[in-house]
Formats: sequence, C-alpha cells, structure tokens
Amino acid sequence: MPHEIQREKLEQAVGVLGEQDVDVWLTFARETSETPDPAFALIVGHQVTWQSAFIVTRDGKRIAIVGGPDGGVVRAAGLYDDVRTYNEGIAPILRAVMRDLNPRQIAINYALGDVASDGLTHGMWLQLTDALKRTPYRQRLISAGPVIGALRSRKTPAERARMQRAIAIAEEIFAKVGAAIKPGLREIDVANLAHDEVRQRGLTTSWEWDSCPIVNTGGGSDVGHGGPTERVVEPGDLVHLDFGVVFEGYCSDLQRMWYVPSKADPEPPASVQKAFGACVNAIESARKQLHAGVAGWEIDAVARTTLTTAGYPEYPHALGHSVGLACHDGGPLLGPRWPRYGETTERAIEPDSIYTLELGVATDRGYIGLEDEVHVTKKGATFISPAQKQLMIAGR
Amino acid sequence: MPHEIQREKLEQAVGVLGEQDVDVWLTFARETSETPDPAFALIVGHQVTWQSAFIVTRDGKRIAIVGGPDGGVVRAAGLYDDVRTYNEGIAPILRAVMRDLNPRQIAINYALGDVASDGLTHGMWLQLTDALKRTPYRQRLISAGPVIGALRSRKTPAERARMQRAIAIAEEIFAKVGAAIKPGLREIDVANLAHDEVRQRGLTTSWEWDSCPIVNTGGGSDVGHGGPTERVVEPGDLVHLDFGVVFEGYCSDLQRMWYVPSKADPEPPASVQKAFGACVNAIESARKQLHAGVAGWEIDAVARTTLTTAGYPEYPHALGHSVGLACHDGGPLLGPRWPRYGETTERAIEPDSIYTLELGVATDRGYIGLEDEVHVTKKGATFISPAQKQLMIAGR
Repeated sequence: MPHEIQREKLEQAVGVLGEQDVDVWLTFARETSETPDPAFALIVGHQVTWQSAFIVTRDGKRIAIVGGPDGGVVRAAGLYDDVRTYNEGIAPILRAVMRDLNPRQIAINYALGDVASDGLTHGMWLQLTDALKRTPYRQRLISAGPVIGALRSRKTPAERARMQRAIAIAEEIFAKVGAAIKPGLREIDVANLAHDEVRQRGLTTSWEWDSCPIVNTGGGSDVGHGGPTERVVEPGDLVHLDFGVVFEGYCSDLQRMWYVPSKADPEPPASVQKAFGACVNAIESARKQLHAGVAGWEIDAVARTTLTTAGYPEYPHALGHSVGLACHDGGPLLGPRWPRYGETTERAIEPDSIYTLELGVATDRGYIGLEDEVHVTKKGATFISPAQKQLMIAGR
Repeated sequence: MPHEIQREKLEQAVGVLGEQDVDVWLTFARETSETPDPAFALIVGHQVTWQSAFIVTRDGKRIAIVGGPDGGVVRAAGLYDDVRTYNEGIAPILRAVMRDLNPRQIAINYALGDVASDGLTHGMWLQLTDALKRTPYRQRLISAGPVIGALRSRKTPAERARMQRAIAIAEEIFAKVGAAIKPGLREIDVANLAHDEVRQRGLTTSWEWDSCPIVNTGGGSDVGHGGPTERVVEPGDLVHLDFGVVFEGYCSDLQRMWYVPSKADPEPPASVQKAFGACVNAIESARKQLHAGVAGWEIDAVARTTLTTAGYPEYPHALGHSVGLACHDGGPLLGPRWPRYGETTERAIEPDSIYTLELGVATDRGYIGLEDEVHVTKKGATFISPAQKQLMIAGR
C-alpha cells in the first residue's frame, strides 16, 4: 500500500504532539531533490519543488500548502486533508493558516545535534521568519527535534518488519561473502562480491555504495569511512566487513568478522580471541543495561568502561545509533558526552527504538569490529540480528 | 579521472572569490547523505559524516577539517592540500584556522532564493555561529550565494561535454519513444518505454524517477509535476513529454511534442499549429535577447509578452533555469519577479551558463510545451539541443 508508513507516522505524530504539549509541527521545504529534509520520508513520501508547508496539529489537522504544479501529487498521496496551492508566493496563505490555528508553539525542523531533525535550511529559516515577522508567531518557533526524534525512534510494526528483512538480506550476503573469502582476494574483490549480491536483489546499500561494505583486512588497514583498497587478504589475517542494505526504505547496519587460517595458525591466535571476547563482553554489558528511558551516554559509558577495564583502548565513536529510514536515524545517541554529539547523548531512549551496538579493537592481525541491532523497550534490549559471538573462519 | 570536475571547479572558485572580493568561502556540513549540501558536488565529490569544514581562500589555499574517520577519503581525493582531523569537536580547530586566515568576509552556504546555494542547515548555522561567538568572525559571515551561483553557472569545457552527452542520450530516447507512441497506450506505458531505455543505458533520470518523464496526453491532462496516469492516448491527441537523463553527474532537461493523427485530422488542426507556432516564437524572441550580463527577469518578460500579445495566457512558471549538476541548477533565474523566486530573477546571467528555455499553452487537443537548452555567452545564446520547431507525428 503506497504511503502506508507515512500514514502510520502521521497518526503517531498527533500523539507525540499531545505528549510533548506542542500545538503545531511545521515542515517547511523546497526543491527537496536538491536539499532534502529527512522528515519528508516520515510524513510526505514524495518530493516537492516550490516552497511547501506540511502542517500537523495536536488535534489531528493535516494541512499542506504547496506550489500549483505540486498540488496533484500531494492530493494523489492523500495524506493531507486540506491541500492549498499558490502560484506567486506562499507567505500570505501560510500567515492565514497560522492565524486560523493560532498555535502557542510551532515546531520547525532544526536541531543542533540531531541531523535527522535538521532538514530546514538556513535560507528557508530566513524566509519563514520573514513571512511571520509582523505576526505573534515569529516568537513561537521552537525546534521540532524532540517531535521528530520520538517519531523516528518509535518504530511501528510495519517499520520493524521491513527492518527485519533488511537484516535477513544482509546476513544472507554476509554468508555468501564469508564463504568466498580466501587468501589472494583484494579488499575491493570482497566488496565486489557483496555488491554483486546487492545488485542481483535490485537493492541499494545502507550508505554510499563505494564504501558499503567497508572492508578491513590484516594489521594496519585504515579503519574508518574510506572505501575498500587494493590490499590483498593473506593467511593469518582478520577480515572485517561493515555493511547493510535498504529494504523498502529501511536500512540494516551490521559488522561481521572472519579469520583466515594460515599454516602456522589454523585457528585464531589467543591474543585475537581475547580481544574478540573483550568486544563481545563490552557490547553485552551495555545491552543488559539498555532500556527505554535511560540516557544514551550512560549506556555508552558501560561499554566503554568494560572495554578499557579489560585493557583495551577506547573506541573513537559512539556505541550505537538509531537505525531506520536512515542508517544513522537520528534521535538520542548511545554516545560519549563529546561536543560534536551535542545534546543527543543526554536524551532518554524512546520505546520501540532500534539501535546498533558497535565497537572494536585494532590487533596486529587486523581490526576487530562488531555491530548488531537491538529492539529497545521499557523492559530491556533484545538482539534482532544474530549477534556474532564467535569468530567465523573464512571459506567455511 | 576521478574528481576532475571538482578540481576544475576549485580552480574556478579561487578566481570567483577574487572577482567578488571575498576572502574565504566556508562549506560547513555533516552527514551529507542525510542532509546534502549541493555545493559538495562542486568542490568535494564525496560524503562526510561528522561536522566538516571545506575552506577555499582567494589566495588559493584549500583546507579541510573533518572527523577522524573521514580523513582517509578526503586525503585520497587529493583536492585539499591541508587536511586536519578531530575526534571530539570541530570548533577549536575551526577557530584556529580562522585566526590564521583572518578573513574580512566568510561566505557560507545559505541563500534566500537560490536552492543550490542553500545547503547549510539552520542547526549547522547555529553551531557555526556558536563556535565563532567570541571571535570577530561571527560578524563577518555573508551569503555564498553569489560565489556558488557563479561557480555553478560558468560551465567548464569538461562540464559542457557531459551536458552535450546528456542531451544526445535524451534525444535518442525521445526518438525511440516517439516512434512507438500510438493510440491505446496509456501515459504510464509511454513513461515505461522511456524508463526501459534509461535502464538499458545504466543511467538515471534528471528528476524523481516516477515523474520523469512527465507525460501529458490529450485535452484536460493535469499539467505539472505529477506522474503519468492511466489516461489512454487517442487519435487526434497531442502527446507531451518533459524528460532528461543524468550523464556522469550532469542533467539534461527537454520537452518534446507529438501529434497523433486521426481519420478526421490526419494533420494537426490549424488551432494547434497556431498555438505551437506561438510557443516557438515566444522562445525564439527571448533567445535572441539573451546574453551574459542581462538580468533574468528581462528575458522572461520578453517571452511572456510575446506569448500574451499573440493572445495566449501567461505560463505559470519561469521561462528558464540553469541546468547542470542539478536539473534546477541554481544561480540567476529567467523568471518573473514573483515573491517565491526572491532575488534570483534580479541577477545578471553568467557567461558560459547553460539555460533551459521553456513555456507552453494548453489546447483542447492537449498541452503544448517546448523546452530546449542554450549556451549563453557575452555575445548571445545558442541552442545546444536540437530545438523543436515542428510538431512531430507520433509513430513516424
């Protein structure tokens, strides 16, 4: 059913506005193919060209104001009861609608820390504040970060079903790639194996094609967001993949590890096994403490402390992020209180969130990185991907 | 050669900063897969994850400040001489670089009217002004609109070559589709014919797949950005396509028209021919006046007046837009002075711009819409697509 997700999310939005005591949520955007607002995937589901306003109120009204040429697609989608169109400028209609609604607050799509809530461009913010400058509404603009964060976090059953499929497909691909890994392949060959499987299924990857999967082989491989290199898999190496696919708009994001047997070491060396075990333990220690309502930074601290107490260095990133329509889906972050994360590590985890739990340790045989996904409720966090707890052996 | 375009555009940018007397251009973005800044295609050419600053100075310095995990990909691209990385927060390095450069102006990516220059989100603007709040640089921020507008507008030879290919491929596809149009096909069948050709070539469309091509058949077809419908082509109809493809990042954007012969009217009726001729004349009258340096609104007014003087209503959109990396490529607009176009209609057309010239008239046989592309220099404007000056007959 087209726009099934947007229909569910719009219903959820009305509830969230009530909970957060916000009268109006206004999504204000233009030319969304050039400057997309991530909120569009939640509550619009198509592109617009001219300045457009999508308005949801706490009492359930849904009003769209769009340029004439976009009227047809908005009406066809059927998500907004009241669709108004203009030719010359949006400001007069927008002011009239605000006068009718007379909201105490208007939540708009900007946020310091949360990218998925920060779709309003600065130029559009200037236009909006100019349109409202001689009205009382100019002073009633607030960040829609908490509204969008809750909405993206709380996955509906339809959303969770798609995410389970995105995980299952990634696992199928990991199994095929893992069976094919052998000495002599380059990182780029390993990535191509994964890409062939993605293409055959007519899907896309969860992030930029050229660096999804990330492939790291052997000691000294550059860990990060760079693409796979010409480096060749050798006996005794670890091979690490960070990868995911998009299924009907929803992403998976997983990391898997293999050991490549050598004559000297047919099984992984003890130091590698020990580091691998420390990663598993650090993730598990955090998972046990994770539940809806806890602040993100507290859960990161559990994993970080478990890993450093075991004698390994801190990982230079957050323990986990929400996954969904985007691979980094916004909302509260399971991360340390570093400036670049802003307020996102302070916020309480929402019920029915899906989070990654991910961390790693560099060894002389290669990078060990683990990442699985959990469904978080008030009671706790349950793995929804088959959590890797043993090193796999390449080629088996 | 990878990043050939970005290399050319960065060189061009230094010249534009000199011309416009701007000391520093700062592109400030994060998670560009979620909230892309259109300037990235010009001067970066890949995605970034954490807060990132790409700095170009009028004396030719190129400095990138990016999160640790993005360092590898930025260095591999080789576009920035000085690449600095951070783990916890970007603000201290950004302030230090600004102190060293001590610019009189810092152009940042926001603009009221020009979407392609409006990639900075409001949340990132808040972060930037916070990072600079106790420095003199907070008051030196200006819009990079004129810089980006010039840079996007002035197509290099490498850019123009790609655009010619994007036009040639669209023309091939128009020829195949036009030969296949016949009574009984639905609009959606016509769109599928075009989509098959795009897929076979491994390309994408210039805008959203589902509404590229736009297909309008017969009288009363809804003209706009909506997708093709179930409406069936009938003898005596006009069939209209608005379509383009992306070739190596560069778009084409063209409209083509066919008449479907009927027993009663084996040739287009006189009223249709007359309206078609009025559209051709209106476009031609504007093309003759178009050259670098003229203000966009003046050229729109020429076409608009020619068409209304011939007795037809005004078209409810701009006469033309710049084409390039985006189908609507930003910069000055050949449009009427309507509020939603902001200042973009007031600006002077840049040399080596590529513009569409497009307008239309609704008739009882269907919508007549024409659109071709011109290369604009100081001397004038030359068609770079085979301008349609005759109605084509479907099936021939």
